[in-house]
Amino acid sequence: MPCPTLDDCRALDAADPLRPLRDQFDLPPGVIYLDGNSLGVLPRETAARVQAVVTDEWGQGLIRSWNTAGWFTLPQRVGDLIGRLIGAGPGETVATDSTSINLFKVLSLAMHLQHRRGDGRRVLVSERSNFPTDLYVAEALCRDRGWTLRLIDGDPQTALPAALGPDVGIVMLTHVNYRTGAMHDMAAVTAAAHAAGALMVWDLAHSAGAVPVDLNAAQADFAVGCGYKYLNGGPGAPAFAWVHPRLSAALGADDWSTLAGWWGHAAPFAFTPDFQPAPGVQRLLCGTQPIISLSALEVGVRTVLAAEPLGGMAALRRKSLALTDLFITLVESRCAGHGLTLVTPREPQRRGSQVCLTRAEGAYAIVQALIARGVIGDFRAGDAWQPDILRFGFTPLYLGFEDVWHAVEHLRDVLQTQAWRDPAFQRTQAVT
Amino acid sequence: MPCPTLDDCRALDAADPLRPLRDQFDLPPGVIYLDGNSLGVLPRETAARVQAVVTDEWGQGLIRSWNTAGWFTLPQRVGDLIGRLIGAGPGETVATDSTSINLFKVLSLAMHLQHRRGDGRRVLVSERSNFPTDLYVAEALCRDRGWTLRLIDGDPQTALPAALGPDVGIVMLTHVNYRTGAMHDMAAVTAAAHAAGALMVWDLAHSAGAVPVDLNAAQADFAVGCGYKYLNGGPGAPAFAWVHPRLSAALGADDWSTLAGWWGHAAPFAFTPDFQPAPGVQRLLCGTQPIISLSALEVGVRTVLAAEPLGGMAALRRKSLALTDLFITLVESRCAGHGLTLVTPREPQRRGSQVCLTRAEGAYAIVQALIARGVIGDFRAGDAWQPDILRFGFTPLYLGFEDVWHAVEHLRDVLQTQAWRDPAFQRTQAVT
Repeated sequence: MPCPTLDDCRALDAADPLRPLRDQFDLPPGVIYLDGNSLGVLPRETAARVQAVVTDEWGQGLIRSWNTAGWFTLPQRVGDLIGRLIGAGPGETVATDSTSINLFKVLSLAMHLQHRRGDGRRVLVSERSNFPTDLYVAEALCRDRGWTLRLIDGDPQTALPAALGPDVGIVMLTHVNYRTGAMHDMAAVTAAAHAAGALMVWDLAHSAGAVPVDLNAAQADFAVGCGYKYLNGGPGAPAFAWVHPRLSAALGADDWSTLAGWWGHAAPFAFTPDFQPAPGVQRLLCGTQPIISLSALEVGVRTVLAAEPLGGMAALRRKSLALTDLFITLVESRCAGHGLTLVTPREPQRRGSQVCLTRAEGAYAIVQALIARGVIGDFRAGDAWQPDILRFGFTPLYLGFEDVWHAVEHLRDVLQTQAWRDPAFQRTQAVT
Repeated sequence: MPCPTLDDCRALDAADPLRPLRDQFDLPPGVIYLDGNSLGVLPRETAARVQAVVTDEWGQGLIRSWNTAGWFTLPQRVGDLIGRLIGAGPGETVATDSTSINLFKVLSLAMHLQHRRGDGRRVLVSERSNFPTDLYVAEALCRDRGWTLRLIDGDPQTALPAALGPDVGIVMLTHVNYRTGAMHDMAAVTAAAHAAGALMVWDLAHSAGAVPVDLNAAQADFAVGCGYKYLNGGPGAPAFAWVHPRLSAALGADDWSTLAGWWGHAAPFAFTPDFQPAPGVQRLLCGTQPIISLSALEVGVRTVLAAEPLGGMAALRRKSLALTDLFITLVESRCAGHGLTLVTPREPQRRGSQVCLTRAEGAYAIVQALIARGVIGDFRAGDAWQPDILRFGFTPLYLGFEDVWHAVEHLRDVLQTQAWRDPAFQRTQAVT
């Protein structure tokens, strides 16, 4: 196929049935935002919603709003909205706390369930390239519960089967890798984990709202995910947790996470001194939730649900792949000879909604030079076993094909003119 | 002393040096708010601050605001502000997560430290009347770590010494009881716990911003507390955690909570696969924080700090005691013969900033009848070992003496007219 032109990109935008979804957002002028995989952009309705929560619900309603404004059930209501994006039925998902804390809760409950089975499984398998906080959560829990954390390297399609022995109790993976954008086959990996006798825990941080996910079809056991990336919930928005209804239904009065709090109690206002878990996933609620931030998350989730009449996640996925395909094609033709290498898998079914590149020199400075031009991606430092990364996320809700064209032209110009060598763009210290 | 009159109350307001602090808040017209111990009122500056975070920092700054708007260090900055209210120096406090989760983190770290000492202490002592979520957190941790939760009943001044044996590793108490308003002598109890070889953990949910607290002077080991009560941070505002600098300085590379996440890592953006704790209390940070809610908390904390030029917490305490003394005096004279009994200790040094009453009949309905008149307190159901409670919180920042007068007059009228017997005010089902 010949390399697309700017006019081709404009034609793609003109023919894009999802184009109206962009009007839900306020993008700063002059910015091409390729970092929605880190922090989604501000929906137009968020400011008014947050203001109503602050001024009316809190200011006027005061304590009464716990009931009259439905604050107390907000984690379930927002959870159900998120559930529609990840193949979960009503009552299976709660929006609460942070991804790290939710991961702790589901891992702790999964360990408890494996202990109850009593077949001595005490190994938790994950990938060394998983998002570090997932590994820290697992490491700390393993340390205190006498488990071993077994990390696999390299291609999980070969490394994972080799790691699955009769000692494995839990497999914990992030569906789309935060660095590389590589995506697991959720159903196949879950089946392999189950065949080995392990429970399967998925982190959907880079999946929810980005790629189609069907947790029930995949027969996953637990999942967690992030509210501030593709769900556009705002900085540090609450995260979510999901439990398969098959597992939920089998949870008994003794089956709870190590992190038990009053919002997960069967009767939170009975104030009993002993913990009695609420049914199903609700037992994963813990303390009181930040209502203002949680309300902003609801608005963000609705911006993704707005795609439902236009084909929903399947349509968003088609556009996402078209955007990332276009980016790869343009980079490889327009930036040819500048030393960029594709890190993200080229096969569409193995790729999330981001594209990562690497370069032997200057990755950090190139990202800074692009940001200075309003093309916002991000940099992830390499180490002994993985390269520096230039990371670009593509959110089909608010990105168009012409945006991709201009982003690549800026990248080309930064490389051709060596603008990235400007001392202002160099890394002077550890990134913070 | 003769019972004060309405004119006396007005004279007290006219002479009150803290009266200007009330102008920091927007109270709904017609409301006398005696529930700041459950949810503090909205500061006037919060709406604008939240709007700036949403529209400017998030909407315009996008991902760049993690650095440019200081989002990443907000837990430390807000923590330091809270520290000024609880006798903590800079760098000793972080604002993060919920009270339950922070309690989990400090208990988990305290258990780890006791395990390291190796003298076999495996008992956690608390009160049966502690806030239930504190007990749930302790119960779940004890279950999974092989500890025993020993709950004391009755007057802790006699029950606590009897419970402190050589098997006790941790004493965990809430400084001001959520139901009764009774306050512990922090320094004396901490000294008793230390003398018995235990670490002392304080929950300041009903203390921070309400009564003077000096954690360093009391030599406490750990503390947690709530952002949405007397700190006026908004519904479900993030909570805080504190570690004594003596303990912080002694924490080694292996001394971390079971809840380890990337915000508590020594180098969060190095993305190492293994956990390496940040110095001191910062290791108690875990996942990404809800920036909008955390920003609202900062505004709330500053409304309390605004009392510093007027005498600070000591001046707020003087007014708080004057308000609660007045309430008790007025209830006992103006509502005499109506069957109300004082539950909160009468001695000022044993009382927080709330007053609780009980009545053999109608406690729930009386609270509802008062709320219908704009006098907002709350009801806490009794059980086999404690009575139903009518609970009234007094926040000196925004309450005046005339408010107390009118609240008691409404209470008197509800009782005299038996307005509370209206079917609309009766409890038809479990309180939710």
